[in-house]
Amino acid sequence: MKKYSVIGKRLPRVDARDKVTGKALYTDDLSLPRMLCGAILRSPLPHAGIVGIDTSRALKLPGVKAIVTAADTPQIKFGIISRSPKYMDEYPLAVDRVRFIGEEVAAVAAVDADVALEALDLIKVEYEELTAVFDPQAAQKPGAPQLHGHAPKNISREYHIKKGDPAKVFEQCDHVREDRFTTQSAIHGYMEPRAALASWDQSGKLTVYTSTQTPYYVQQHLGLTLAMNPDNIRVIKPFVGGGFGGKSDGLSSVEFCAALLAKRVDRPVKLVCSRDEEFTAARRKHPTQITMKTGVKKDGTILARKCRAILDGGAYCSLGPLTTILMGTFQTLPFKFDHFQYDGYRIYTNKPPCGAMRGHGGPQVHFAQDAQLDMIAEDLGLDPLEMALKNGLQTGDESAAGFKIVSSGFAECLEKVAADTGWQQKRKAKKKDADKAYGIGLGCGGFPSGAGFYFSKTTSAHSTVIIKAGEGGGVNVFTGASDIGQGSDSVICQIVAEVLGLPLEDIHLTSADTHLTPPDMGTYSSRVTVAAGNAALNAANLIKAQVFQSVADELEANPDNMIALDRRIAVKGSPDRSISFTDAVNLYQKKNSGAPLVAQGSYNSPDPLSPTYSFGAYICEVEVSLLSGEVRIKKFSAAHDCGQPLNPMSVEGQIEGCIGMGIGYAISEQLIFEDGQTLNPSFLGYGIPTADRMPEIKISHVITDDPHGPFGAKETGEGSLDPAAPAIANAIYNATGVRIKDLPITAEKILKGLEGCGR
Amino acid sequence: MKKYSVIGKRLPRVDARDKVTGKALYTDDLSLPRMLCGAILRSPLPHAGIVGIDTSRALKLPGVKAIVTAADTPQIKFGIISRSPKYMDEYPLAVDRVRFIGEEVAAVAAVDADVALEALDLIKVEYEELTAVFDPQAAQKPGAPQLHGHAPKNISREYHIKKGDPAKVFEQCDHVREDRFTTQSAIHGYMEPRAALASWDQSGKLTVYTSTQTPYYVQQHLGLTLAMNPDNIRVIKPFVGGGFGGKSDGLSSVEFCAALLAKRVDRPVKLVCSRDEEFTAARRKHPTQITMKTGVKKDGTILARKCRAILDGGAYCSLGPLTTILMGTFQTLPFKFDHFQYDGYRIYTNKPPCGAMRGHGGPQVHFAQDAQLDMIAEDLGLDPLEMALKNGLQTGDESAAGFKIVSSGFAECLEKVAADTGWQQKRKAKKKDADKAYGIGLGCGGFPSGAGFYFSKTTSAHSTVIIKAGEGGGVNVFTGASDIGQGSDSVICQIVAEVLGLPLEDIHLTSADTHLTPPDMGTYSSRVTVAAGNAALNAANLIKAQVFQSVADELEANPDNMIALDRRIAVKGSPDRSISFTDAVNLYQKKNSGAPLVAQGSYNSPDPLSPTYSFGAYICEVEVSLLSGEVRIKKFSAAHDCGQPLNPMSVEGQIEGCIGMGIGYAISEQLIFEDGQTLNPSFLGYGIPTADRMPEIKISHVITDDPHGPFGAKETGEGSLDPAAPAIANAIYNATGVRIKDLPITAEKILKGLEGCGR
Repeated sequence: MKKYSVIGKRLPRVDARDKVTGKALYTDDLSLPRMLCGAILRSPLPHAGIVGIDTSRALKLPGVKAIVTAADTPQIKFGIISRSPKYMDEYPLAVDRVRFIGEEVAAVAAVDADVALEALDLIKVEYEELTAVFDPQAAQKPGAPQLHGHAPKNISREYHIKKGDPAKVFEQCDHVREDRFTTQSAIHGYMEPRAALASWDQSGKLTVYTSTQTPYYVQQHLGLTLAMNPDNIRVIKPFVGGGFGGKSDGLSSVEFCAALLAKRVDRPVKLVCSRDEEFTAARRKHPTQITMKTGVKKDGTILARKCRAILDGGAYCSLGPLTTILMGTFQTLPFKFDHFQYDGYRIYTNKPPCGAMRGHGGPQVHFAQDAQLDMIAEDLGLDPLEMALKNGLQTGDESAAGFKIVSSGFAECLEKVAADTGWQQKRKAKKKDADKAYGIGLGCGGFPSGAGFYFSKTTSAHSTVIIKAGEGGGVNVFTGASDIGQGSDSVICQIVAEVLGLPLEDIHLTSADTHLTPPDMGTYSSRVTVAAGNAALNAANLIKAQVFQSVADELEANPDNMIALDRRIAVKGSPDRSISFTDAVNLYQKKNSGAPLVAQGSYNSPDPLSPTYSFGAYICEVEVSLLSGEVRIKKFSAAHDCGQPLNPMSVEGQIEGCIGMGIGYAISEQLIFEDGQTLNPSFLGYGIPTADRMPEIKISHVITDDPHGPFGAKETGEGSLDPAAPAIANAIYNATGVRIKDLPITAEKILKGLEGCGR
Repeated sequence: MKKYSVIGKRLPRVDARDKVTGKALYTDDLSLPRMLCGAILRSPLPHAGIVGIDTSRALKLPGVKAIVTAADTPQIKFGIISRSPKYMDEYPLAVDRVRFIGEEVAAVAAVDADVALEALDLIKVEYEELTAVFDPQAAQKPGAPQLHGHAPKNISREYHIKKGDPAKVFEQCDHVREDRFTTQSAIHGYMEPRAALASWDQSGKLTVYTSTQTPYYVQQHLGLTLAMNPDNIRVIKPFVGGGFGGKSDGLSSVEFCAALLAKRVDRPVKLVCSRDEEFTAARRKHPTQITMKTGVKKDGTILARKCRAILDGGAYCSLGPLTTILMGTFQTLPFKFDHFQYDGYRIYTNKPPCGAMRGHGGPQVHFAQDAQLDMIAEDLGLDPLEMALKNGLQTGDESAAGFKIVSSGFAECLEKVAADTGWQQKRKAKKKDADKAYGIGLGCGGFPSGAGFYFSKTTSAHSTVIIKAGEGGGVNVFTGASDIGQGSDSVICQIVAEVLGLPLEDIHLTSADTHLTPPDMGTYSSRVTVAAGNAALNAANLIKAQVFQSVADELEANPDNMIALDRRIAVKGSPDRSISFTDAVNLYQKKNSGAPLVAQGSYNSPDPLSPTYSFGAYICEVEVSLLSGEVRIKKFSAAHDCGQPLNPMSVEGQIEGCIGMGIGYAISEQLIFEDGQTLNPSFLGYGIPTADRMPEIKISHVITDDPHGPFGAKETGEGSLDPAAPAIANAIYNATGVRIKDLPITAEKILKGLEGCGR
């Protein structure tokens, strides 16, 4: 590994101090003169026609300034996947019909939140109730209510992959297993609820501050749904308190209603969702039913896979059509399948729309896959880790879904995590007390580092970064990349600092403001480090080349023989022949009539699927109460190949966060519905693990030097989630002999299983 | 004149609607969470040592969060003209000594303005009173108190010009006059008082929103005085309610104290000056004493000029050293002097520092010059307008101070304004009633369109504009130019729109934010239209060339044979062979892997003095009450050569504003002092003319096509002020026979003059 100054260092994030001192301003912290407060009226019914809306009483309430309904909108449908009109199935305010409890029906702007909420109660909506369907199987049956005219049998999206001939190969396998897994409805639980502040100027230009992962798409979709040129809309992402995929839909009704109300009242309007609204009406993870069939040789070599998945999509598309694809493709990581078949079906139901959530289809299928491989290993008397080693994708391989593996540290991850934990000894020396059982389990993962495609038609690069070097020696960096807490601002600053030999504090970053920063598609698909990172790298290299040339001219040296280090540009090997970066920039300006040194770098994925893939192997150790079924996660050992960790602290933060989220997904989190109504819309009822539930975590960085990543870096933020839940499920099985194929693995289910085992 | 689409049109300014509806946000409209209110303690004495400052009682006042004095500062002197250390004579908070009533001694941050003001009263400053000197003559005498160690005889700056041999030539003249003129202390009266809002992030970076003309210099000088790298300071100019030179000092204590207090309390601090503080302690116009001697031939041809000026500078330099120069150089416009001598002395006195104010030395000397030429014409029995015509600078001439006249419409201005008014008839047919006298007078002017020099050391161009064209068809324009109400934002948008064939609404401007926009030296010296305008023109032409090339490739046409018009790029003469601007930008992006189309244009004056000069001739018609001496300005006729008026409405607004300001300067405005104390610190007492005092105004645009101006444009904002006061003075004389050489020409002085005339 090369020696770097800034890259690979455990540096505090550039915004860390502002965040921990409460100085960082989130959307709800912003205030504009004469600002009003907005609130959204939501449907109380899962499926109904809207016969009429009477706002007259509400409008009479003192302090109410405006109420908008679909009648006040251009009634244009949107959908983040706007390349296909059939995925644009949703109005930002319901037109004539509502399809889930919580759907947006009207919005109010008032002098304060109390008045706005009171006004909501005074709006009278006359509904004509329609038969609702909540179960994806029922929804496909003849006679079921049809949610959308364009989707017979309520099939929102189907997707099929076939490679080789699994059916035939199964016959040749030594062992074939078919299991059925189900996963629950889960939600992101980001700390900051969605919020938007909209303001219009008098020339008809709109500015929206919003808690989003995708300012570029918000700009485009607001333009679409408001029937105006997106160029006249400026979208600014302030600090964002998490997204995890829940703020990546390109538009939410929050932004739309804030903009519409602000236009109506000609005053700024801020709209902030309550936690209740987040739990009942925001995007969430698809509940799924997965039938997985895998055939192997008796030595554990995987020969074939066939998988059928049903995704309960909820009432609208959101990013679900993509989830339907990814549940097929993501299970082709990190293992080889020569014969592979996937059939995925996403079904409309009268529940809140499901979309992207960290891992985006991966956690569901990886839970199924690793649990099944664990069972197969047991069936064959093999060590599941050895079996994983045998089947792992290596550098140069191509997965069954066509993912080209340009660097893989998967085998090393397995070896590392086995050594870290004493895997083999612990598997053998299984411990059990009178009332407690101890177990250890493995989970594996692999994940793309960004998608190579676009959701919409655009001629813009995936990411562009512009750098301007100033006479004071600092550089101003402009990126559209959206830091939502994952640390992309810091990564971009580190890359630029490394290239230019500057300390982090000399990098002045402006990010995620559609009027100031060049287009970037947003934060999703674990794309930012590679896409925006490479764009930053390209821009910084162009700046460096110009600075080197200026210094070379001055020192009569060869520009190819220079280094940038410690705020100086020096001739390699001759530290006395050097000039400060500041002076070098000023030399450049002098030679260019004072024109500032500006460069831009763009990046597009060289592969339409993804430029490269991360890998990981996680081992979980659990303690299960045989009396109560309660699971305590004792320890997680993670070995993750994210190429070159640009900032190990950030990588570890992502892994720790994924483990926390994985624990919730595996054993405690779940949205419970009754007739389309969320029964537990609060942190108290939903079950996100609290800090005291976090286990000891040991992280090993498996370093590969990826040819596509900036400084060899790959993703960490999503791939690290995939192995967590199956590692826990397998550890619980290892401890108790109870195999639960239905997430979450609650104490109740374990106890029931223990009873079935004769305890 | 060429036919343009946007240039030369009477278009509302891009920010007009926001301003008239109150939507435009000025510094005082801004608010940040946890923001405190600041206030400044000022010296009650004109000259004193500071023995001690006791803040203990004030700090105990509930709600007071911090108090800062010089002890809390790095005690570094500043001055806008930082090329010369001797002009950096001022601390942003007084160190050990105060030199004028109103000087900044301490600053408080408190929860609200009431508490902050109360705290000021509780700060106990022990002063040791020193002898003060208020008169510039007295200040030069032996034994006078010395304000600064570096300035013997309190001479802050002296400046001398000598061309030819005036003393010798006077002997050969047919007629020589020497007159002594005095001008008063006047102040800008901008509508928005100075205000600054400062906020620090936790990594030690400072953001300051401030009502300034010069964000770039504020950044540099805040860095200097706070002893930090200016790159870590971001200066943002929100909407600004006028400056007129009063906000061009590169730093005010308002910005410094807000920043210092915000650092101390680690919370945002906003500091807004009261109108009283503006009148007592802000920069103002130099009061002057001008001895002017001019020799002519009997046909009116000017042969020689000798001028001695004393500027009462107040306690510190501010921009005064430059004023001292400009009072010499500006009087060489718009007339030819083959023999010329100027001796200017700026003297320190214990009064508030004088600096730049609209016209910057010009109004003082032009009052003297045009009044004296009017007297000479009368002495010789000549028409002063004919005499002006005989002596005016023409294209190709060089003024006595070295101003190279690349375009002059001066003669045409004189002819035009004479025709517009019926000058000759009215001069002859002089009307007088029993109690009223009517008169008509001429004033002339010429003014640089920007300075070719810098106040500080920098390698940056005078102005740079960056343009980014987006896939939506609009363009984002980034300029450091500071619109303080003069309309530069609009002018830059118009220039870009014209070049690219776009309507104004497609231009999205970001201006005057040191972190986002490329350096621009600021708004002073009437520089913005030519400097930033040319930078914008250069950048837009580069964008156009790239767009033309993309379209040419697509249509297989010649890029040199295209036009941009109505959002389309077309082959000249073949309107059917065209493509929309939006599509053209997208073609570019497609061919460049999605990289956005970005270009920058810079501008430096080709001449170290100024690139070019405006000219004007104004005729004023007055009615004077012979009973009260009251003057009513009945009509102003202005002919102004600003090259090509980019927006005639803006040009006319500037001329109207100058006439209003000129009326105040000529007959009513004046700061009155007693022992260094301002006696009339309010709009009520100061005498700015109200709207009902505005005369009928007729404006004629004299259009020259200047080779250096963007689309041939020159300045209007300052040069238009110079002719106003002398035109009034000459008209009053023409009406009454009373010649007042001491501004303002009050009713009292006129009455006294009338008595002297025997009435």
